[in-house]
Amino acid sequence: MKIERYQIEEHNTNLSQDHKRRFEFLAQDISRAEEIIQKLIKFQIAIPSWALGTGGTRFGRFSGGGEPGNLEEKMEDIGLLHQLNQSSGAISLHIPWDIPENAQAVKALAAQYGLRFDAMNSNTFQDQPDQKLSYKFGSMQHVDKAVRKQAVDHNIEVIRHGIELGSKSLTVWLADGSCFPGQLNFRKAFENTLESLQEVYAALPDDWKVFVEYKAFEPNFYSTTVGDWGQSLLYANKLGPKAYTLVDLGHHLPNANIEQIVSLLLMEGKLGGFHFNDSKYGDDDLTAGSIKPYQLFLIFNELVAGMDAKGMDHATGLGWMIDASHNVKDPLEDLLQSVEAIMMAYAQALLVDADALERARQENDVVRCQEILQNAFRTDVRPLVAEARLRSNAAINPVQLFRELKVREKLIAERGVKTVATGL
Amino acid sequence: MKIERYQIEEHNTNLSQDHKRRFEFLAQDISRAEEIIQKLIKFQIAIPSWALGTGGTRFGRFSGGGEPGNLEEKMEDIGLLHQLNQSSGAISLHIPWDIPENAQAVKALAAQYGLRFDAMNSNTFQDQPDQKLSYKFGSMQHVDKAVRKQAVDHNIEVIRHGIELGSKSLTVWLADGSCFPGQLNFRKAFENTLESLQEVYAALPDDWKVFVEYKAFEPNFYSTTVGDWGQSLLYANKLGPKAYTLVDLGHHLPNANIEQIVSLLLMEGKLGGFHFNDSKYGDDDLTAGSIKPYQLFLIFNELVAGMDAKGMDHATGLGWMIDASHNVKDPLEDLLQSVEAIMMAYAQALLVDADALERARQENDVVRCQEILQNAFRTDVRPLVAEARLRSNAAINPVQLFRELKVREKLIAERGVKTVATGL
Amino acid sequence: MKIERYQIEEHNTNLSQDHKRRFEFLAQDISRAEEIIQKLIKFQIAIPSWALGTGGTRFGRFSGGGEPGNLEEKMEDIGLLHQLNQSSGAISLHIPWDIPENAQAVKALAAQYGLRFDAMNSNTFQDQPDQKLSYKFGSMQHVDKAVRKQAVDHNIEVIRHGIELGSKSLTVWLADGSCFPGQLNFRKAFENTLESLQEVYAALPDDWKVFVEYKAFEPNFYSTTVGDWGQSLLYANKLGPKAYTLVDLGHHLPNANIEQIVSLLLMEGKLGGFHFNDSKYGDDDLTAGSIKPYQLFLIFNELVAGMDAKGMDHATGLGWMIDASHNVKDPLEDLLQSVEAIMMAYAQALLVDADALERARQENDVVRCQEILQNAFRTDVRPLVAEARLRSNAAINPVQLFRELKVREKLIAERGVKTVATGL
Amino acid sequence: MKIERYQIEEHNTNLSQDHKRRFEFLAQDISRAEEIIQKLIKFQIAIPSWALGTGGTRFGRFSGGGEPGNLEEKMEDIGLLHQLNQSSGAISLHIPWDIPENAQAVKALAAQYGLRFDAMNSNTFQDQPDQKLSYKFGSMQHVDKAVRKQAVDHNIEVIRHGIELGSKSLTVWLADGSCFPGQLNFRKAFENTLESLQEVYAALPDDWKVFVEYKAFEPNFYSTTVGDWGQSLLYANKLGPKAYTLVDLGHHLPNANIEQIVSLLLMEGKLGGFHFNDSKYGDDDLTAGSIKPYQLFLIFNELVAGMDAKGMDHATGLGWMIDASHNVKDPLEDLLQSVEAIMMAYAQALLVDADALERARQENDVVRCQEILQNAFRTDVRPLVAEARLRSNAAINPVQLFRELKVREKLIAERGVKTVATGL
Repeated sequence: MKIERYQIEEHNTNLSQDHKRRFEFLAQDISRAEEIIQKLIKFQIAIPSWALGTGGTRFGRFSGGGEPGNLEEKMEDIGLLHQLNQSSGAISLHIPWDIPENAQAVKALAAQYGLRFDAMNSNTFQDQPDQKLSYKFGSMQHVDKAVRKQAVDHNIEVIRHGIELGSKSLTVWLADGSCFPGQLNFRKAFENTLESLQEVYAALPDDWKVFVEYKAFEPNFYSTTVGDWGQSLLYANKLGPKAYTLVDLGHHLPNANIEQIVSLLLMEGKLGGFHFNDSKYGDDDLTAGSIKPYQLFLIFNELVAGMDAKGMDHATGLGWMIDASHNVKDPLEDLLQSVEAIMMAYAQALLVDADALERARQENDVVRCQEILQNAFRTDVRPLVAEARLRSNAAINPVQLFRELKVREKLIAERGVKTVATGL
Repeated sequence: MKIERYQIEEHNTNLSQDHKRRFEFLAQDISRAEEIIQKLIKFQIAIPSWALGTGGTRFGRFSGGGEPGNLEEKMEDIGLLHQLNQSSGAISLHIPWDIPENAQAVKALAAQYGLRFDAMNSNTFQDQPDQKLSYKFGSMQHVDKAVRKQAVDHNIEVIRHGIELGSKSLTVWLADGSCFPGQLNFRKAFENTLESLQEVYAALPDDWKVFVEYKAFEPNFYSTTVGDWGQSLLYANKLGPKAYTLVDLGHHLPNANIEQIVSLLLMEGKLGGFHFNDSKYGDDDLTAGSIKPYQLFLIFNELVAGMDAKGMDHATGLGWMIDASHNVKDPLEDLLQSVEAIMMAYAQALLVDADALERARQENDVVRCQEILQNAFRTDVRPLVAEARLRSNAAINPVQLFRELKVREKLIAERGVKTVATGL
Repeated sequence: MKIERYQIEEHNTNLSQDHKRRFEFLAQDISRAEEIIQKLIKFQIAIPSWALGTGGTRFGRFSGGGEPGNLEEKMEDIGLLHQLNQSSGAISLHIPWDIPENAQAVKALAAQYGLRFDAMNSNTFQDQPDQKLSYKFGSMQHVDKAVRKQAVDHNIEVIRHGIELGSKSLTVWLADGSCFPGQLNFRKAFENTLESLQEVYAALPDDWKVFVEYKAFEPNFYSTTVGDWGQSLLYANKLGPKAYTLVDLGHHLPNANIEQIVSLLLMEGKLGGFHFNDSKYGDDDLTAGSIKPYQLFLIFNELVAGMDAKGMDHATGLGWMIDASHNVKDPLEDLLQSVEAIMMAYAQALLVDADALERARQENDVVRCQEILQNAFRTDVRPLVAEARLRSNAAINPVQLFRELKVREKLIAERGVKTVATGL
Repeated sequence: MKIERYQIEEHNTNLSQDHKRRFEFLAQDISRAEEIIQKLIKFQIAIPSWALGTGGTRFGRFSGGGEPGNLEEKMEDIGLLHQLNQSSGAISLHIPWDIPENAQAVKALAAQYGLRFDAMNSNTFQDQPDQKLSYKFGSMQHVDKAVRKQAVDHNIEVIRHGIELGSKSLTVWLADGSCFPGQLNFRKAFENTLESLQEVYAALPDDWKVFVEYKAFEPNFYSTTVGDWGQSLLYANKLGPKAYTLVDLGHHLPNANIEQIVSLLLMEGKLGGFHFNDSKYGDDDLTAGSIKPYQLFLIFNELVAGMDAKGMDHATGLGWMIDASHNVKDPLEDLLQSVEAIMMAYAQALLVDADALERARQENDVVRCQEILQNAFRTDVRPLVAEARLRSNAAINPVQLFRELKVREKLIAERGVKTVATGL
């Protein structure tokens, strides 16, 4: 399935009058509107290969139709998203599910869709059918050196695949931890994990980064061996300059102030990547911005401020990725909604009057500080984001066009009703 | 201190061109703009008498200047707020601190400020200097009947004061509970509390309501005898048709879905009142809408839908009150920000296309359901709320005018720098 | 696999001297030792059919060997447990996985193992291969009456199977809820669910009970339609005298005071059943007593006090069941540990000096209240529980004997290494 | 008030027969009983000067009688505790409340009571009557250098007092943080705080330590500038070898795995001190071991294992202190209960068979790991702890003797009924 250029243009023509009216009205109040639009155009959010099918829980999974069955179809799906919003121009692969049999062909296909290869993801939280040793009791933390070696080798293999495809980073998320008090020697688990990561780190090309992701709990329910940002930072500091912390919004204890964590990691020069999603209870993996959009804005406010303070380029300074699960929505529509929410939060953060904010802080004028942030957040930035899309030849309203073009129906026609995407 | 009519007009004149431009642009997209504005104008949020001074924690309190020292000054403060936003036309008294010595004079003063007397609040969570028996181990739950009687008598006295002033409701918040496992016989504590409430209920005039507020924890740290909405509803149902549950946003366990609670209480005909504030951790009593504005909108969405389903009048169907603490902001500015955030959430809820939402739900079109809510929330409704104020002769930008008129400076000049508001 | 009587006797003979010494030492300080032992002997905890295999999470499952492949093997497993501890004399079935093809044969087999059929469990949170309509958007809450009817019919069928086997209760756990704000009309979802439950209730034999289980979240991550004890109680009260609330320890928001909930439900005469497990973060489904053993004791303290106050028989007054998942332990060993922890908590609760506690409460002697509970909890009751087992011809140390007899190895020999238990 | 030696002996004589019977029975099963008793005897827990009066919340305080009104009376109170349990031989002072006017006299008095001076505590979370600049918007984080300097100077003064008294450490707990999004520049707040701490650090004698305490929230309700162990460790590492992290049990987000944090901080050589208390919701400051005694044991298990791994002396390797608030109990009885619970958790941790545990971990025998910990925890160690007291000439049952001797009544007779302890 392919969307034709004229179909997007037709859609935009239909909506352009209304859009133009709204955009122009908004733009007259925003002095830096052009600059913001350029930043929005440049900002790309990677889509992980596992997010294209219907997700599930331990209680079950209600798959939809037309889900991609292989890497080529996954790229096709992301290609469709990218055509619709021109903000999803990257794919994040999950090995072993996405091992490219012919790397050149896969690269050529990606180029055709306008996609680059974002961070590679290894997998040591499940046992594969042909796997020699089990990860039941962990991978890089394992008491058995042979299991650790297997996990290290797998990660090195993932790097190898990534090199072939032009990726420049590896994300390591370890499910390692324990389910019961006493199960683990926390210190040895840390040391084993560090040693394993060091071996992976040694195999990292000079121009690569490794992201050490942390998570408070699940699938282990008593402890996690990379459990919070403090632990991740310990590993990253001990590993060296190519190692960074990766923040996933859903991987925190209740009430955590994630924006502060983000700010401090940037201060330390150790924030590497970001996984977007939203949650109410745990790692719910809901659509970005669907539960706490103000928190998403506050996080972007710290990201923008922290990156600007370091002179980092917003688009390329960090690895940006969605990591959500779509249990009750069409996965592609869900991803479009996530990208939209992320772009809006970014746009709102760009609207913040940073100088005025700093002045208000200097005066301890808390009321004014709040007003400055809320003024940005309360602004209806949808026309700004839509204008960025329009200028990139994407659709003014991607979800609407997705439905008008009956994308899902066509994918079902091509791929069948009973499909289950590979990977988690 | 009094704000002159011309001062508000001058302020509005200065801002009116910009406002008009924004309002007219917005209004052209909202078919029911007029209806919404009328509802916004009618909607009044009561200010509790204890919210006018700087709040504190057990670790200390950093009082500001010009705080009101008696009931008359508290009414003066709320009168100022009401002049500025015309949305704060009610005061909620706290006995014993606000006992009116001359009810007629107090009523006359209130009328002058355009204020009515909202719910009366009793206090049995502190011991007063002249108090016979201590509430250290609870009031209505107490194992000693004499303590319970003292608490009941106090509540009946509060009702009596309320009758004199024209109030029509009593809010009972009990700090009763326990700090340690074993301390309480939960069932007897419930029964004692019920019996005490029944005695208060018996003293309630026919046209009065009693609101049974619940709270998960603090000041008791193991159990609370009216701890959640389920318990409050048990009491309210056992008490009778004049008894209702009151929801305070900060009184829940982490991650609670408050909007669902609100919806079910309305379904049961037992939601009576509402205390607005915001929180990140516990009963933080922060400015409404300062932490989770989307949650505030979702709650209003349920309030509007639920009240409409019962044919209830939005403005008078429930008791609306702010219950926040202002530890680092000017209390009056903080209250203006809270009212603004509440009005915005209400306006956004009124924008929701309820019919379209119900259709999307019927089709399990979750993506569309979300879009409908987000479309309302993402709309910049500030011009709508400002227009409602403008038509009520309030200020287009209340916080700005508060500062322009140097209200705080004048209050300090009148009342002094070293002031501590009475009441909590 | 069967454990021979002599094997248990041999084990007990080996341990009896030590046991006797400990038991006699303990017993001399406990005036009601005999009475407590008799209560422990009578107390039976049902094992759900889905708890016999290795559990998993959405991230994977690491199955062990020798897992039961059908109802007969599940009964065999529970029979083994019951031989070892004589406290697991009941099985709780999960339909559709455990549909008995020949009810009489199944009953005969159960009798042979000394098992009775505890509550029947329906399943509407997954789609079965041959199922006509999907539960993707709920079952009893569904907007489509046909889906609701399918769910009701399924529950009625479950009752029918239960009648054949001699069960006397139905547990309804609904995964119904929503993942996103806006998705559900909370009130209609409640009403649909109530209507569905009423239809099931109508099919309930006179001597049956129905347990309405609640859960705060998962698999739905925004709202659950039977989300807390307050909602469950609403349903139970509207349904009638045969309907009760069921409490599962893992189904609460963080920090919830579960023992108070238990106490109030008993007070209302509406506590029906109990699911034991433990958790640190969410519905972690860990071994009972492995994380918060003091909480387990406090809950039993309320259960004993509340049931005594109503004159209820401890063993038969409520439905007692384990509901845990065994991801990293041998499921049978895990269940033995859970039963042991439950028996200990029950024994400790029986040790509480209820009269002294009530007196201390009357005097608000909080220090003494705490000491009374802690005195019971700090007592090493393992000899008491072991004595109850010894007198029932069970093993003094069930886990030890399980290993000595190489039960798992024999089950693997019989059933194979690559097994996955049916059911969740 | 002084307890006479004969009074303790009389009490012990009365209880000794029962005690001896229990102790001897227990000791025969514990190979290292003598070693454990010696460790228990050496282990001393400091009492903070602010814990001797009735605590309160922002909602009020219900003071008891006979509370100490000055430093001398506070030392007298701790002297009484120490006589009763011989485990509370240290006092932790809070400046400005406990400024010693005559250090030599205070030292002499302390020596008389057998007390040493544990960590000194500075206070910058309240404004003192004579204070030049306000801490309303923080102290060491403050945007105004003059405020930071005032806070630094205060800490240096606290060190000076500590030197006079023979203390060897300073605990810095900062309430610094923010109540609203936007209020703080997180990075600048961190940098200001670091700079301030560096100035304090520079004034630290060579044989002193500084403990950087962290807290998730309260009194600030949006962010805390030393908010979690990760942040505290960042400061400690940047400060240098004399800087350590201090863990207070109540200062974490819901569900945090504190034992893992403790283990990792010990691994990093950066755990410095410990504040004991217990909590169900937030920083509830309840009696140690009153809510989650198993967690307390698990923490001690990590402390013992981690200190042993480093060859640290248990009694002197870390700073041990209670930090609780006594709102509904007699403060002295409450402290006796806390010390008892701490000693029990320590004794249980000493009972853990560390070698067997390590072997079980090596085999991933999770069931056995759990059994090893639970075997230790389920052991009734009260006779061990009592024996340690008996050998130290303390009371077998301190709370009982406290009551028999009518200590509180005598303190009231000496000091009066209406007393409010100074300090928080």
